Amino acid sequence: MKVAVILSGCGVFDGAEIHESVLTILALAKAGAETEFLAPDIAQTSVINHLTGEIAESESRNVLVESARIARGKIKDIAQADAEDYAAVFFPGGFGAAKNLSDFASQGATSHVQADVLRFAKAVAQAGKPACYICIAPALIPHVYGAGARLTIGNDADTAAAITAMGGAHVNCAVTDIVIDEDRKIVSTPAYMLAQNIAEAATGIEAAVKATLALI
Amino acid sequence: MKVAVILSGCGVFDGAEIHESVLTILALAKAGAETEFLAPDIAQTSVINHLTGEIAESESRNVLVESARIARGKIKDIAQADAEDYAAVFFPGGFGAAKNLSDFASQGATSHVQADVLRFAKAVAQAGKPACYICIAPALIPHVYGAGARLTIGNDADTAAAITAMGGAHVNCAVTDIVIDEDRKIVSTPAYMLAQNIAEAATGIEAAVKATLALI
Repeated sequence: MKVAVILSGCGVFDGAEIHESVLTILALAKAGAETEFLAPDIAQTSVINHLTGEIAESESRNVLVESARIARGKIKDIAQADAEDYAAVFFPGGFGAAKNLSDFASQGATSHVQADVLRFAKAVAQAGKPACYICIAPALIPHVYGAGARLTIGNDADTAAAITAMGGAHVNCAVTDIVIDEDRKIVSTPAYMLAQNIAEAATGIEAAVKATLALI
Repeated sequence: MKVAVILSGCGVFDGAEIHESVLTILALAKAGAETEFLAPDIAQTSVINHLTGEIAESESRNVLVESARIARGKIKDIAQADAEDYAAVFFPGGFGAAKNLSDFASQGATSHVQADVLRFAKAVAQAGKPACYICIAPALIPHVYGAGARLTIGNDADTAAAITAMGGAHVNCAVTDIVIDEDRKIVSTPAYMLAQNIAEAATGIEAAVKATLALI
C-alpha cells in the first residue's frame, strides 16, 4: 500500500509543519504503509527566520528542495506525480499549506491553490481515493471538492468563516479528534491549529491517519 | 521535570536529523517532561541541497536559526544556558552533530567539539545528570566524558574505530536497542545510523528516552 505525503517546505512559519509531517509519516509507517513524498517545484512565498519570526528579505528558498529535508532527500516534484500510483494522500499543515500550496494566508476566501497541487488533489478526489488534511491544510478542501465538503481547522472563527465563504462545511473539532466526510472520503484534524504540545497533535494525527487508511 | 534537547540545524545532511529530533520530543512529551531547545549560535559548516545532495556553495545558514524550525521558534543559544536548569539532556543525530556541534565528520579521531556545546555537555556530566546521545551524536561522548565511556553508533566499523581511537568504548547495537553507561549515566541508540524506516528509529529512541529519564 503506497501513499503520498504532500509537503510545502520545512518549518511551521513558511513551510510544512515539521512535527505534523513527522507524526504523519510515523503513523503511516506503524500502519505498514509505504510513503512517498511530493512537493511543488516552486519558490517559497517567503523565508521566515524562525528564531525572530521576521521575513528574511534577502533569502529565497525552493519548496521542493526544503521539503527534501523532511523527506531525507527522497522526494518528487508533484507535477510529475500520478494520483493513480497512490492509495491515499496526506497533507500536513504549517503556513506552507497556506502560503506555498495555496495563497489562503494572504487571500482567504478568494484564495487559489497552486496549479500542480490542485491537479493532483483533484485527481485523487475524482478517483474516489481518501485524503487527509491536517491543521490549516483543510483550507484547500473547498477548492478541490467544491461546495459542501465537511472539514475542520479546529475552532478559529475567522479561518472557519473564510472556509465557509468558499463553500466548505466547517465543523468545530477538538485537537485530539477528527472530522470525516464519508461521501468524499476526506479526513481532517486540527493538530497545531489547537495543539498545546506535540503529544496532543500526535493523538489527533494518529486518529486521522488510521481513519484515512480505513477508507481505502 | 525540565530537560534540554540540543539541536544542530534542521535537516539530516547539514543539521539535526528531523525525524530523530521530533521522535525525541514526542517521547519526552508522552513521558510528561517539559522540553527546552538549545543550539549554538554559529554558522553551519555547510548548506546541503537535500534534493540533490550537493553543497549549496552560495548559501550560508545559522545553526540556531535553522534549529528554530524544529523548535517552532522557541529556542535558546546554548552559550546562555545553564546545565543546572535541566534534569537531563538529549542530543538527536544528523550530520549537524558531526559538522556543527563538532567536526567529527571531517576530522574523525582528531575532532573537537564546539566550545559552547562542550562546556554545557561537560557541566551536565559533572553534575551527574543523565544524557542521551542518538545516531552519530555519540561521537561527542569521548570529548565530554574522557576515556572509557560505553556508547554505540550502531555497527559501522570505520566510525566505531574513530570513536575507539578517541577513547570511547564502542558496543555494537541493534537499531531497536540501546546502550547504557550506568556509571556515567549515558544512554545511546543507533537510530538512522541503522534504521531502514522511521518506525525502527522510533523504537530505539523511545527506549533511549525512557532509559535516560529513569536515570534522573
